[in-house]
Amino acid sequence: MNEELKEESLIPAIEIDHIGHAVPNLEIAINNYQRIFGMLASDIKVVEQQGIRIAYLSLGNVKIELMEPLNDKSPINKFLARNPKGGIHHYCIVTNDINSSYDRSVSNQLNVLNKPTKGHHGRNLYFIHPSETNGALIEIEEPAKKQ
Amino acid sequence: MNEELKEESLIPAIEIDHIGHAVPNLEIAINNYQRIFGMLASDIKVVEQQGIRIAYLSLGNVKIELMEPLNDKSPINKFLARNPKGGIHHYCIVTNDINSSYDRSVSNQLNVLNKPTKGHHGRNLYFIHPSETNGALIEIEEPAKKQ
Repeated sequence: MNEELKEESLIPAIEIDHIGHAVPNLEIAINNYQRIFGMLASDIKVVEQQGIRIAYLSLGNVKIELMEPLNDKSPINKFLARNPKGGIHHYCIVTNDINSSYDRSVSNQLNVLNKPTKGHHGRNLYFIHPSETNGALIEIEEPAKKQ
Repeated sequence: MNEELKEESLIPAIEIDHIGHAVPNLEIAINNYQRIFGMLASDIKVVEQQGIRIAYLSLGNVKIELMEPLNDKSPINKFLARNPKGGIHHYCIVTNDINSSYDRSVSNQLNVLNKPTKGHHGRNLYFIHPSETNGALIEIEEPAKKQ
């Protein structure tokens, strides 16, 4: 880790929180990951605000977020139209001070998809347009509060 | 972690080693990740066997593997033709006994893309066809040897 590099960056990255995997059917994907990799899924959660049903698979160091569209207006429908069997949709980087990161992103003309909004887990998050990050959709999230 | 589930699975998953991000130009992507996220890249490595040039970005718990095609025969060209700006190409799951995992995969009719082969880092790896894993291309790798 180069601390100076971090301090000068727009969004100092700490770690990866999860990999987002869009699927047409959540239950099928959960059973499949369990059978192949022995991964146990969390309870399914409906996230109205993001138009998805999700479940997390925990894998020691990182989570896999399985996402299924909730309705016709779901923002992942377009992705699934292009990838009908599902696919890797985004990954999520954790940063310490999300509001400062967002402000630096905007003042440096980084194309962001939304202002920091509270996710279903209570943490603030925003997305960067993939054209800024070499084609990868990246979610920025603040760290989980220490219990 | 449910140990019984793991033992009964085809490829008991331990952790994520890296996220593979295919890009049209490695140097541009390295500079971009450094500027935006303060991530420092490893030296660039030419992997003839896989037809790619790669660099790793370390992020505490997980690596990001940036990959650029080496020539016209590179296996990531098709992906980049569909995603000209780049995109998330695969992610890599670590399993303890890769030969047993491979044998169980095959005897359970899982569509695998290759037999375990030594990667540039000296560890054995194979890929599963995305149709088996809900559209996500997943690489299976054995753990790094303890130094």
